[in-house]
Amino acid sequence: MIEICEVGPRDGLQNEPKLVSTETKVELINKLIDSGIRIIEAVSFVNKKVVPQMADAEEVMRLVPKRDDVRYAGLVLSRSGLERALHTDVDFLHVVTTTSDSFNQRNAKRTVDQAVEELTKVIEEGAASKGVAGVLGTAFGCPFEGEVPLSKVLNVAESFLKAGCTEITLADTTGMANPLQVQNVVASFQQEFGKELKLGLHFHNTRGLGLANILAGYQAGVTRFDSSIGGLGGCPFAPKAVGNVCTEDMVNMFKGMNVETGTDLEGLVESAKWLERSMERPLDGMLMRAGIA
Amino acid sequence: MIEICEVGPRDGLQNEPKLVSTETKVELINKLIDSGIRIIEAVSFVNKKVVPQMADAEEVMRLVPKRDDVRYAGLVLSRSGLERALHTDVDFLHVVTTTSDSFNQRNAKRTVDQAVEELTKVIEEGAASKGVAGVLGTAFGCPFEGEVPLSKVLNVAESFLKAGCTEITLADTTGMANPLQVQNVVASFQQEFGKELKLGLHFHNTRGLGLANILAGYQAGVTRFDSSIGGLGGCPFAPKAVGNVCTEDMVNMFKGMNVETGTDLEGLVESAKWLERSMERPLDGMLMRAGIA
Repeated sequence: MIEICEVGPRDGLQNEPKLVSTETKVELINKLIDSGIRIIEAVSFVNKKVVPQMADAEEVMRLVPKRDDVRYAGLVLSRSGLERALHTDVDFLHVVTTTSDSFNQRNAKRTVDQAVEELTKVIEEGAASKGVAGVLGTAFGCPFEGEVPLSKVLNVAESFLKAGCTEITLADTTGMANPLQVQNVVASFQQEFGKELKLGLHFHNTRGLGLANILAGYQAGVTRFDSSIGGLGGCPFAPKAVGNVCTEDMVNMFKGMNVETGTDLEGLVESAKWLERSMERPLDGMLMRAGIA
Repeated sequence: MIEICEVGPRDGLQNEPKLVSTETKVELINKLIDSGIRIIEAVSFVNKKVVPQMADAEEVMRLVPKRDDVRYAGLVLSRSGLERALHTDVDFLHVVTTTSDSFNQRNAKRTVDQAVEELTKVIEEGAASKGVAGVLGTAFGCPFEGEVPLSKVLNVAESFLKAGCTEITLADTTGMANPLQVQNVVASFQQEFGKELKLGLHFHNTRGLGLANILAGYQAGVTRFDSSIGGLGGCPFAPKAVGNVCTEDMVNMFKGMNVETGTDLEGLVESAKWLERSMERPLDGMLMRAGIA
């Protein structure tokens, strides 16, 4: 059984040039739930001036359906983000740092060590009332530094886990991962933290390797994957980091492989088509164009 | 070591709406060779009225550089195609049939059995002077029939091998394959014909699974893959069957995995960009846009 963390409403939308209405965001989340999605990265508690698209995080969380079987996560990048998140109904905090100093300086104006120092306190405090997952960006490479030492990624994960994270997601922020690397990194995490560690993988399809990397992660034992409906997505701080792995394309792969995802593929394709109409631009998803085989 | 069979000049170009000049085709082939490509499906000896884009097959073969280290293949779908091919310098014949009656009726106006009957004679005759590979289309599914029984695909392969083919390529004509199926089909072929069978795989990226399927094939022991520079490609008889696996995106994956392809990635990306300019339309390749990581 695959657990999909749908990041369309957050990582997907945050890069959209046109401001998306709160109503559209809530409708998207409802459609995703109707299609069987149960974990949704719904909002980001980021500086509204930096990412205006996420400014209505509190309002979105007020309007989405509260259901025991749906887990809403909100992105937290700082103490101020935590304080906002704690005043909402998000079930889970996704506390994020990248693992490359060059990238983090550009993205968050601080080194990785500085980020970890602040964020471990954020995690400790957040974990008192919400679940917390640590999200480690540039875990498979940095566009400015190239290779990011695996030891560094493991160290950040260790600090986050000690602070109270119950899950770690490794994010390939700019689409640099390859399947062999995915297998090696996952094996190292399993060796370091045990196979019982709840490990998620977050890939972008920047270089066409999104589904190949998902496959490699699945073969290595990972069952939690981030993806984005319609393949919406990108990172406003990373040029060319467009294209999260597309949810319905990933579900189509797993369905072909007889691996359960708990979702309704037809419903996802219809949601992607609705989203494409709403965004008024072509999305990257392939299945919505080719049709279910 | 991966052997790439570059199909851009044939499967890639044949679907281009604008007629491509012989000069451009020959320049493309030269660029591919300069980038380390050594097996090229260069031409198709198909009815000129059906596929005008391939009408200059003889002329292309007259103008490409003759090199001992480069193998040129020409597609043959019938006796008349064979006769044309035998009058050229192609080194190898790619004799093609699909393995689904519905698809073959639409594509070649005959059943699979009728095609095999004619083509085994074509193979026997061709094998007297050229190498012959059998290419089995719809091997992973048919858009009209759905599943194509594996026994049927194995039977066609057996007939082709008995007639003198030294290689078999399984083609996913409309992008229906998934990684588990690829592993199962390859395992069945290895069991039936032995691991020494030279087996190639030809995928389309129709549903985004091209590289995931290549990965699965590689893991199953296959080292020969068809791909198309820039992701050019499609099948004029199969609507929505656009997008061969992109050569440079595939090479990028294998390079990341430390698997040798004998090619120069930078050269391939430059060739893809040149081709995109020549075609005057955006191609599907991802790496040419994202850049080499």
